[in-house]
Amino acid sequence: MADSKEYDLIVIGGGPAGYAGAIRAGQLGKKVACVEMESAGGTCLNWGCIPTKALLKSAELYLKMKKADEFGFTVGDITFDYAKVIERSRGVAGQMAKGIEFLFKKNKVDYIRGKAQVSQPGLVSIVDGAAKGEVLRAKRILIATGCKMRRIPGLEVDGERVMTSREALASTKQPKSIIIVGAGAIGVEFAYFFNALGTDVTLVEMLPTVLPIEDDEISKTLERSFEKQGIKIRTGTKCENFRVGEKSVTVDLVKDDVKEVVEADVVLSAIGVVANIEGVLAPGVKVELDRNYVKVDDNYETNVKGIYAAGDIIGPPWLAHIATFEAVNAVNAMFGHGEPRRVSNFPGCTYCQPQVASTGLTERAAREKKLDIKVGKFPFTASGKAVAGGSSEGFVKVVTDAKTGEIYGAHIIGSEATELIAEYGLAIELECSVEEVHKTIHAHPTLSEALMEAAAASMGEAIHI
Amino acid sequence: MADSKEYDLIVIGGGPAGYAGAIRAGQLGKKVACVEMESAGGTCLNWGCIPTKALLKSAELYLKMKKADEFGFTVGDITFDYAKVIERSRGVAGQMAKGIEFLFKKNKVDYIRGKAQVSQPGLVSIVDGAAKGEVLRAKRILIATGCKMRRIPGLEVDGERVMTSREALASTKQPKSIIIVGAGAIGVEFAYFFNALGTDVTLVEMLPTVLPIEDDEISKTLERSFEKQGIKIRTGTKCENFRVGEKSVTVDLVKDDVKEVVEADVVLSAIGVVANIEGVLAPGVKVELDRNYVKVDDNYETNVKGIYAAGDIIGPPWLAHIATFEAVNAVNAMFGHGEPRRVSNFPGCTYCQPQVASTGLTERAAREKKLDIKVGKFPFTASGKAVAGGSSEGFVKVVTDAKTGEIYGAHIIGSEATELIAEYGLAIELECSVEEVHKTIHAHPTLSEALMEAAAASMGEAIHI
Repeated sequence: MADSKEYDLIVIGGGPAGYAGAIRAGQLGKKVACVEMESAGGTCLNWGCIPTKALLKSAELYLKMKKADEFGFTVGDITFDYAKVIERSRGVAGQMAKGIEFLFKKNKVDYIRGKAQVSQPGLVSIVDGAAKGEVLRAKRILIATGCKMRRIPGLEVDGERVMTSREALASTKQPKSIIIVGAGAIGVEFAYFFNALGTDVTLVEMLPTVLPIEDDEISKTLERSFEKQGIKIRTGTKCENFRVGEKSVTVDLVKDDVKEVVEADVVLSAIGVVANIEGVLAPGVKVELDRNYVKVDDNYETNVKGIYAAGDIIGPPWLAHIATFEAVNAVNAMFGHGEPRRVSNFPGCTYCQPQVASTGLTERAAREKKLDIKVGKFPFTASGKAVAGGSSEGFVKVVTDAKTGEIYGAHIIGSEATELIAEYGLAIELECSVEEVHKTIHAHPTLSEALMEAAAASMGEAIHI
Repeated sequence: MADSKEYDLIVIGGGPAGYAGAIRAGQLGKKVACVEMESAGGTCLNWGCIPTKALLKSAELYLKMKKADEFGFTVGDITFDYAKVIERSRGVAGQMAKGIEFLFKKNKVDYIRGKAQVSQPGLVSIVDGAAKGEVLRAKRILIATGCKMRRIPGLEVDGERVMTSREALASTKQPKSIIIVGAGAIGVEFAYFFNALGTDVTLVEMLPTVLPIEDDEISKTLERSFEKQGIKIRTGTKCENFRVGEKSVTVDLVKDDVKEVVEADVVLSAIGVVANIEGVLAPGVKVELDRNYVKVDDNYETNVKGIYAAGDIIGPPWLAHIATFEAVNAVNAMFGHGEPRRVSNFPGCTYCQPQVASTGLTERAAREKKLDIKVGKFPFTASGKAVAGGSSEGFVKVVTDAKTGEIYGAHIIGSEATELIAEYGLAIELECSVEEVHKTIHAHPTLSEALMEAAAASMGEAIHI
């Protein structure tokens, strides 16, 4: 292979794991290639986290403008061009993707466009795309191909009547009505977005609550808020027998053997993700998989020496920040830059309004583990900043060890919850006690005071409730 | 004194120090009175932190609505009723003040309306107001009378042409033009507010930058932003020779011996505060003062046994969260509930847009102390959440020990800076290293990632710049 290029590391996939791992290797002075078949930034940046945040910002602004009289304003007709809302979102994604390409250059990462396949340990072939036919060599290969949207069995995604989040992010036509299947973070965010802009939304979840992995009380609070906003929520409900017509989709919603027939312009499938592994490994490359996820050891290395993996492709939780963390740690480790760390403490966020964010154990999980816990709660109605800002919905809840004050988990629903959670993330990382959060001076007036007050409440010392 | 009431503690002043101290004593099962001559919540809640935040929210919303086309909207005429904007702010303050009264009841605090005077150690007389003539007795008295706005010498505050923040918060007439004297947090917040609503604003500061106590780079960034917003900034400038006319005020702005004459509807004096001590101590009560601030020891006790003080009345920094912290610690200490702590690590916030927040040493202060530092910076232009939200102005800066990574200070300018600072507040409180912030998984996409990236940048390991 005289004409193959030799690298220290080849990264397959340019998402939050892949691009971060490649950049980190570049920082360490390594010769690195990052192969991406579509756009730098991967699903997160192009078809996930980032463009959805742009859409949600438009939705928030619309709802705020409609309430502007509370703030002393009189506003004439507010109209919107749905295509423009979508275009702005695409523009943001495009801008951020260019940013990643710039970072590749800055860190001397060879950015290779195409579909990569590990032909054999140490060898990657570009089997499709712009760089088709190229062959790359490296002692180390990092698989970071991520996941793609899971599809509802038997229901073809046509981008018109049936969509995943990806098609919904691209479609410039606003549906009059939508059935969203799955009330995890993605389903919930789209429900908020579409409802805000006037689409009739039915949100269906098989499990007993929306955001089933969040604290029960948070999920219930969000449900009540969503219902007040006008979203129809169907929890503990299965979707059966989708009938895709020319102008609509009809589906049976079944709960406790009772059937409700619902018709809508569009069905949005938000039932999770599956591993992007197809074609990544040539048949002879015997990397061990577990339900299509790549198995790795504590060094993020697979059973095949020199082949590593990080990010969504190694399994749940499928979160961009975890993917980045894993890839950076994998790269640090493979080049002898510190011990690799595996993920233990991480936040999860949902960006509807009120926002939801959490880290660590829910109250239920702590009780199921028979932990002796105390719970501290503080409502945003008692926060001066929240009331002044006109967004006093929600609360902070902290779950602690009854004796030591160790923080097991923190759960927030309310405005800026996704930013506020960072403090408890650090608190858990540093294994500090709830008393230490309580004793730290928090700026007044801020929403972050509610974190301190929830900590104080778990000790019976909250001032403002 | 058969008819005097006997307490465990009498608190003089119902602001953030006073009400919090009183509530804390109530939590500890003590019989406590809180004497307030005006409204529960004090200046902060009624004439400071809280009502300004309500005004600023209206200003923010107005500016956002004017940019709504970027988000895909077409908005008809936007008008506002200035009186309604002010009324909302007063309503928020009133609501929060009622909340404090509720907390007094809940915690069995006797809320006494009037002006209190310490007649002698152990004895407080109500010398004015609703409860005039009452006499209260307690072994412990906590003075928490706070501060009031400093006035410009020789310039009478008439509430029409010449105001402090207090009059500005109450006036329902929007000035067409205003000269704001002093560019600390209060001056800067009013400058943002008035300018946003269309008042012609000249912001004058004697020191070389706006927000002179903040990091130089932050102050400069805010100045540029404010100038772009249309605010006229005059730093390093003195105001001389105010001429108050019937319809306007004229003043000479003098910089480097060059005089500029400026005329405006209103002059707002925002040149700091002075201690509220007048009449609080009867002539025979020899509590030691220092420039009218009450001197206390590490237990918050004055030179007179049984007389304590906390909050703004014991001197700078004059911040509500510090006042609360001091009063709670004073009360804990006087009733044997743990060692009292004095303030060391605390955040400071300014709520204009872009927001400014900081904790610890500025870069300049660290260099002046000859500390061997590293500085890490991360711009919000590189934050996906900031770009998606349409507010990518500003940056995070962290100042660390070059060898150990100890965090000396953190400085933020940008959207939600006032909430984001909480994480670095905890980090400094826990004496964690910048590496620990860097290694903590932060949710993606959030603005809080910028805190992590700034930490990483100080180590040369930021991914996204």
